[in-house]
Amino acid sequence: MITLYTWTTPNGRKPTILLEELSIPYRIEAVNIGEGQQFTPEFLAISPNNKIPAIVDEDAEGGALPLFESAAILIYLAEKHQRFLAPSGPARYKALEWLSWQIGGLGPMLGQLGYFERAEEKSEQALKRFREEAERLLNVMEKQLSTLPYLAGGEYTIADIAAYPWVRAAEERLKGALGTQIETSPALQRWLTLVGERPAVQRGMALPKV
Amino acid sequence: MITLYTWTTPNGRKPTILLEELSIPYRIEAVNIGEGQQFTPEFLAISPNNKIPAIVDEDAEGGALPLFESAAILIYLAEKHQRFLAPSGPARYKALEWLSWQIGGLGPMLGQLGYFERAEEKSEQALKRFREEAERLLNVMEKQLSTLPYLAGGEYTIADIAAYPWVRAAEERLKGALGTQIETSPALQRWLTLVGERPAVQRGMALPKV
Ligand SMILES: N[C@@H](CCC(=O)N[C@@H](CS)C(=O)NCC(=O)O)C(=O)O
Ligand SMILES: N[C@@H](CCC(=O)N[C@@H](CS)C(=O)NCC(=O)O)C(=O)O
Repeated sequence: MITLYTWTTPNGRKPTILLEELSIPYRIEAVNIGEGQQFTPEFLAISPNNKIPAIVDEDAEGGALPLFESAAILIYLAEKHQRFLAPSGPARYKALEWLSWQIGGLGPMLGQLGYFERAEEKSEQALKRFREEAERLLNVMEKQLSTLPYLAGGEYTIADIAAYPWVRAAEERLKGALGTQIETSPALQRWLTLVGERPAVQRGMALPKV
Repeated sequence: MITLYTWTTPNGRKPTILLEELSIPYRIEAVNIGEGQQFTPEFLAISPNNKIPAIVDEDAEGGALPLFESAAILIYLAEKHQRFLAPSGPARYKALEWLSWQIGGLGPMLGQLGYFERAEEKSEQALKRFREEAERLLNVMEKQLSTLPYLAGGEYTIADIAAYPWVRAAEERLKGALGTQIETSPALQRWLTLVGERPAVQRGMALPKV
């Protein structure tokens, strides 16, 4: 059995979506990061970086496996169940490329934009930097999706699963900074609909229930 | 033959280190990001996110493969040559976990700290945020390395290759913000010496020659 430690945030919903897609049994432990539950000794033993998501797979090869970092969790589950990540060839590495782009670029930059937007004291300099980075990254994504159905090519992969909750969150919560960029990007909108229509994505986006 | 597009920055030196470790033939194309060479149409066709590093492997399965994002490049080369990343089991996923932690956490946060340190206008708020994040992340790394020889356990992996150029750059260039944290972290120092003594690491850190 897999235990998923997560919360109602974009990073927290990548593994819920994948676990729903895989239809495998798992249980959720909600870690309320607003209340500091990511700092308990029990959670830090699993996720020493004090961030959700993390999993423990009791039935992993070699005994119970604790794992943090959303990208590592997505790759682990995709490889274990041989779905949403090709085992070899260009399709595999294009998926890992766009997954890396999400966790190293889109995620951190939208995350910082949100942080400085919510901060009481406003740093115009920081807001400008992260707004420009977010706009640039969303443009890169729009271009990619204007020639391909999914981020990594013809197939739905863990790269789409990683990006979807972030683009949805930006659309809903970063309008102040980004204006209507996402609503007026046709390829992004097509992709948001395509991915968002998947029942597993809808179920994963509604978790964890708190 | 592999062509590596890179520059003299921490992300640019992850693939030079790995290619030197693998002792395979490759050639370097220097992309001077200070002069905007990451925005030429030729480079954008390979790396649409306008960032180094990127590779083109002429001899990939299925034809020439362009690939950007340092993590995707490291995984690709490690899998192709079956070194520095276990093919399965916990060692594999611990390496991917700490690789993800580097590209999603340590890299972006040290990168932002550097950006706001170098900026002419000083945002105390942004400097404080990224200084605190950098200190926190370096502490997480110190703790991990105080019980294990390498980031992902007993073996040197692509996680160490990804983190090494960043910690070295922080030690050299972020003293103003971080003080002597890195110099006075015993486990980090032990690991810096251990990794830094590898001849391939020394060769990779001196590339690209410009
Ligand atoms: N690179 C990490 C980022 C995870 C992350 O930023 N998690 C946030 C919530 S979305 C968190 O747990 N924050 C709590 C904290 O930093 O104390 C991943 O992809 O898993
Ligand atoms: N997530 C990327 C980050 C790459 C990155 O930030 N590269 C920087 C140099 S270290 C760059 O090319 N910057 C040029 C630019 O942004 O225009 C990776 O790991 O490859």
